[in-house]
Amino acid sequence: MTGKVIIVGAGPGPADLLTLRASTALRAAEVVLHDDLVTAEVLALAVQSARTLNVGKRCGTRSTTQDHINALMIWHARRGKVVVRLKSGDPAVFGRLGEELEALRRAGVPFEIIPGVTASSAAAASVGITLTDRNSASALLVVTAHNVRGEKLRASGFDPQRTSFAVYMPGPDYGSTARDLMESGVDANTPCVLVSHAGRASEQKCFMALYDLPFALGVAAPAILLVGEVARRVPEHTHKDVSDLIPNVLSALESESEGVLRTKLRA
Amino acid sequence: MTGKVIIVGAGPGPADLLTLRASTALRAAEVVLHDDLVTAEVLALAVQSARTLNVGKRCGTRSTTQDHINALMIWHARRGKVVVRLKSGDPAVFGRLGEELEALRRAGVPFEIIPGVTASSAAAASVGITLTDRNSASALLVVTAHNVRGEKLRASGFDPQRTSFAVYMPGPDYGSTARDLMESGVDANTPCVLVSHAGRASEQKCFMALYDLPFALGVAAPAILLVGEVARRVPEHTHKDVSDLIPNVLSALESESEGVLRTKLRA
Repeated sequence: MTGKVIIVGAGPGPADLLTLRASTALRAAEVVLHDDLVTAEVLALAVQSARTLNVGKRCGTRSTTQDHINALMIWHARRGKVVVRLKSGDPAVFGRLGEELEALRRAGVPFEIIPGVTASSAAAASVGITLTDRNSASALLVVTAHNVRGEKLRASGFDPQRTSFAVYMPGPDYGSTARDLMESGVDANTPCVLVSHAGRASEQKCFMALYDLPFALGVAAPAILLVGEVARRVPEHTHKDVSDLIPNVLSALESESEGVLRTKLRA
Repeated sequence: MTGKVIIVGAGPGPADLLTLRASTALRAAEVVLHDDLVTAEVLALAVQSARTLNVGKRCGTRSTTQDHINALMIWHARRGKVVVRLKSGDPAVFGRLGEELEALRRAGVPFEIIPGVTASSAAAASVGITLTDRNSASALLVVTAHNVRGEKLRASGFDPQRTSFAVYMPGPDYGSTARDLMESGVDANTPCVLVSHAGRASEQKCFMALYDLPFALGVAAPAILLVGEVARRVPEHTHKDVSDLIPNVLSALESESEGVLRTKLRA
């Protein structure tokens, strides 16, 4: 009698940023093992009878070990339960997924993974920016400031002028994060935006130049730092004429019916 | 009478990998402007009365220009319509979002962005791997093999041995993609997995070493290439004993009630 483990990406926080498949899995769960960052509104999608356990690794406090989490998944699945392992964002991005997959594979426990909206995508959407751009960012480098081996963010030689950076867990030592980026070749004047609680009601966003990052105190975790030309603050709703931007097209549209337009566009 | 534009991430293809918010927006849309890669099952979520237009840029064939797409969004919104601009994956990752945001801002058209599951997360979930890993991948570099300026994938100096690569649009010239990665310092023996139609019924996946990539012919687009130690193929369901992996925990669980366990874990 073996159940299964469904590893589910919970997205950035708001319940409606779960995928339809994730919300279905959560409603079917008999056991829910969730990280600390998963929000109450997401957990509320599980049925009342589900056993819900916070197995989060809290920074600086006593928390569940990875061995315990692995054991809980295997134990419940071997008792025939549908176990949902709920991770904030996307499980494959800084979610310690590798260790859990290895344990499940070795134990012969069937599993599936439901991807989620990762924090950098959620932050970019909230702030209204892109992460890659044909003109200014041909690559996106996704890193964390808390690396297990304490490595610096090494990007020298990579052409930081043509790269956007998404830094997960950039705080609380923003000075060190800024220094590492600069040592990697990112110019001190590079625009960046720090987004805290991306997509939630408590969201805070702060546009600045990289040299101002060390002074970003009091920004609540979890936060995401987006760095690069893409993060330059732009004025909202300038109501300017767009005829230079979209030559001939708007006026053509005005004088044409949609059916004709459709035919022309498809021609 | 101004409507609005909702830029929506359609995810990797299956309709249930849309977010709940995206599916709500799509049902509310009066006009849907979608990319070529958006699947029929996603489009089926829109109401029958919505005007649906494929504005995709097909590789090698005549297609709608960016100016036309911008004009269509602005034109319909200025007529008071709710316009959904539907992009496959996440709009901020290789979705040409920057140009469209600039046009909307300049035109003074209100917009919002709903993030989606990007292709690399979907591919990793389908294949059952992680993208970052505490032991082998402290960074994820997201790039495309089709760069507008024809730049090489330059990663030398970045420590490719500790980085995973997600290469969007890696074909059809897999030889050139493999060569660029090797010239950037990625070892020819590095594991990789090529995933075509990630998450769809037509999905294909092919694990290999980087040196075999040039021979990956006949893999249908859209595809994603994941490169790095994380992409090493692992045997499924080995049913081995896990007591060495999870010392003491499984046996402790066997002899304890869940209530006691819960108390202990929270202590």
